[in-house]
Amino acid sequence: MARRLTIDRDRSTQRIEHDIETLAGPDFTESDQAIRRYAYTAVYENTLQYFTRELEAIGFEVWRDPVGTLVASNVPKGAPAFGIGSHCDSNRNGGKYDGTLGVVTALEVCRLAQESGEQIPLRLISFLEEEGSGFGQMLLGSRIMAQRVTEEELQTTILAPDGTTFWESAKKAGYPVQNWRDSSYELDGLTGWIEVHIEQGRVLQDTGNRIGIVHAIAGYVHGDFRFTGRADHAGATPMDFRLDASIPAAETILEVQRLANEIGDTTVGTTGEIESFPSLINVVPGGVRVSLDTRSVSGGHLKLRDRIAAYAEERAKASGCEFEWVERQGLAVTPMDEGIVAALRVEAEATGEPFIVMPSGAAHDTMCVADRAPTAMVFVPCKDGLSHTPLEDADTADAALAAEIILGAIMSLQS
Amino acid sequence: MARRLTIDRDRSTQRIEHDIETLAGPDFTESDQAIRRYAYTAVYENTLQYFTRELEAIGFEVWRDPVGTLVASNVPKGAPAFGIGSHCDSNRNGGKYDGTLGVVTALEVCRLAQESGEQIPLRLISFLEEEGSGFGQMLLGSRIMAQRVTEEELQTTILAPDGTTFWESAKKAGYPVQNWRDSSYELDGLTGWIEVHIEQGRVLQDTGNRIGIVHAIAGYVHGDFRFTGRADHAGATPMDFRLDASIPAAETILEVQRLANEIGDTTVGTTGEIESFPSLINVVPGGVRVSLDTRSVSGGHLKLRDRIAAYAEERAKASGCEFEWVERQGLAVTPMDEGIVAALRVEAEATGEPFIVMPSGAAHDTMCVADRAPTAMVFVPCKDGLSHTPLEDADTADAALAAEIILGAIMSLQS
Repeated sequence: MARRLTIDRDRSTQRIEHDIETLAGPDFTESDQAIRRYAYTAVYENTLQYFTRELEAIGFEVWRDPVGTLVASNVPKGAPAFGIGSHCDSNRNGGKYDGTLGVVTALEVCRLAQESGEQIPLRLISFLEEEGSGFGQMLLGSRIMAQRVTEEELQTTILAPDGTTFWESAKKAGYPVQNWRDSSYELDGLTGWIEVHIEQGRVLQDTGNRIGIVHAIAGYVHGDFRFTGRADHAGATPMDFRLDASIPAAETILEVQRLANEIGDTTVGTTGEIESFPSLINVVPGGVRVSLDTRSVSGGHLKLRDRIAAYAEERAKASGCEFEWVERQGLAVTPMDEGIVAALRVEAEATGEPFIVMPSGAAHDTMCVADRAPTAMVFVPCKDGLSHTPLEDADTADAALAAEIILGAIMSLQS
Repeated sequence: MARRLTIDRDRSTQRIEHDIETLAGPDFTESDQAIRRYAYTAVYENTLQYFTRELEAIGFEVWRDPVGTLVASNVPKGAPAFGIGSHCDSNRNGGKYDGTLGVVTALEVCRLAQESGEQIPLRLISFLEEEGSGFGQMLLGSRIMAQRVTEEELQTTILAPDGTTFWESAKKAGYPVQNWRDSSYELDGLTGWIEVHIEQGRVLQDTGNRIGIVHAIAGYVHGDFRFTGRADHAGATPMDFRLDASIPAAETILEVQRLANEIGDTTVGTTGEIESFPSLINVVPGGVRVSLDTRSVSGGHLKLRDRIAAYAEERAKASGCEFEWVERQGLAVTPMDEGIVAALRVEAEATGEPFIVMPSGAAHDTMCVADRAPTAMVFVPCKDGLSHTPLEDADTADAALAAEIILGAIMSLQS
């Protein structure tokens, strides 16, 4: 049976609040309207240096991997340790919490561990460039660490908005990018991993829960339905002379919703982008593009993808239109480790605070860490589900509660 | 019983072909990719001068109204005469036939009338700026002539793309724009009016008819359905937590089609512009705008507008969304004159060529002339219904046939 620590949750809340507010200051963002913090910028470097100072102050050794992901540990590099962390880059119009709250909460776990006097081997990681804002590629730092990219991509296709390659940018920032493969060593000896993140949905808020323990990260498929009809004059073309691409498009939008509900099992389907061509009020839509984002932790999204593509094709035919399904990308479901999830449940229950076990619909760095270690995630509520906006809001007391639960779980797992 | 003329239709075809090809030459368009011809440009002036020369050559007097609409007659100004004509401006990416073919065919009617030796009082009008390309306002010349504009609009709100007012532009071009109200005198004594135009639809082509006799010009309503839901994260928001604006929008698109078919009686409904906000693949549509263009010659478009607005509101509510119907503009149905339509039918039947009596879904200058005189229109087929594109194509032999039918109808009406 693990020792249970007595933790001053108010003090944790204050420290987390202080970290968050500090990192929302003018030295840490390129915008005075939002938290904008891309890899290799001065404000990003300031942020890494803040974490470095705070971690060194409690006795951690801090270093960077060959591309700039920050790693810190209270045991020698490579020695077995439990991993915690997230990312601290933030997108163009970002808020104070997405990513940063995960690193800050991990820092608080480190502080509590050091203060406890217990031997709790920890490794904190703040991944480079999760948001994809600086180089257009999500989870870039964790994908490099998990070797989910190729050297060719880093050298040629992954580009900053000004066209500079990632490779050149990393070099210019002083990193030995040619050694990028050594980044994978940072996951050696990792006994487990827990990432804290704001939920980015409204489930916790709307169900009155303070903690969400993630049992799986959804797999997804992204793609586009493309319907092609004929762009006729809206006045001069009787209804039965038309090949109107908006008809099968509208039918498909409704069927995505119906199928997601019918398949159930956490399956969601979203038609976020809808575009008609030539998009003139007095011209019958000659073409309509509808994007599809479908996810689930059950594989339901693959069922949905297959069934909706067949449906859309059939409805296009019925309207005399051409149809094409163009898949952009997809990622498999990442189940979280049952042992870590169970340990988090026990600790959450012990606090008496309301929590649920839930899927993550959003992608996270943890998906890449999961290639190498047992992982889990902890969500805290964010106001109205808002993220990637300066309106992003979360309660640092929930993060303090998460820190306590996580530290308890790590201790129980190592005992 | 009217005298029936013997007309050499091949010669008419050749003359019309020559006019059309001349006016597609480099002196008559600002673009080498399309026929682009806005009011008050040098190429527009060249075009008016071409018609002036051709009309004077057959003994017509030619003048301009106070804003630049060209008028010509073979009887003294203001004396009773039958009107024929169209417009010869052409939009940014226009073709050789839209508008111009109507003026050229009217010119051919004038030639045939003069050659016949009969006394056939005619008035040819080439209206200024029908397309709305130069000043963003459709039917501008004919609306000025019908006094459907105000002096304030001409002085302040009707603007060229560079911000110059219509008033200043007309002045700069040398026209006594302050006398614009005198333009209405050009319709004095008009005993009737017939305009030739390409159909801009595919009905004539697809039904194998060479002539369409228009019995009414459709009224229309333009507006937008605006659905407002909530822009949630597509991964992190389960289906039953969503307020997805794309659902009532899609239902409304389908209902527009269903209602147009159900109401029938020439009613059409088109959802040409579809826009979602924020339009990101991984965000539930927080807002969707769908435009509506509905038309009919039966009043069915007003029924459709009322019923679809009620339906959209109800479906929005069912999805938890807000709804607003924003009407942009509308125009009443313009019935054509039964006597002129009947005379055109008799003449068309006499030719033995295939024709139909049909509505016009598109708006035309004739709508304004109809305020002051009995009117009708004659459509000729255009390839695949294409207009407002350099791909526009029509058969000048059909226009020659139209000229013969129109001259016959005018003669029978004056007898």
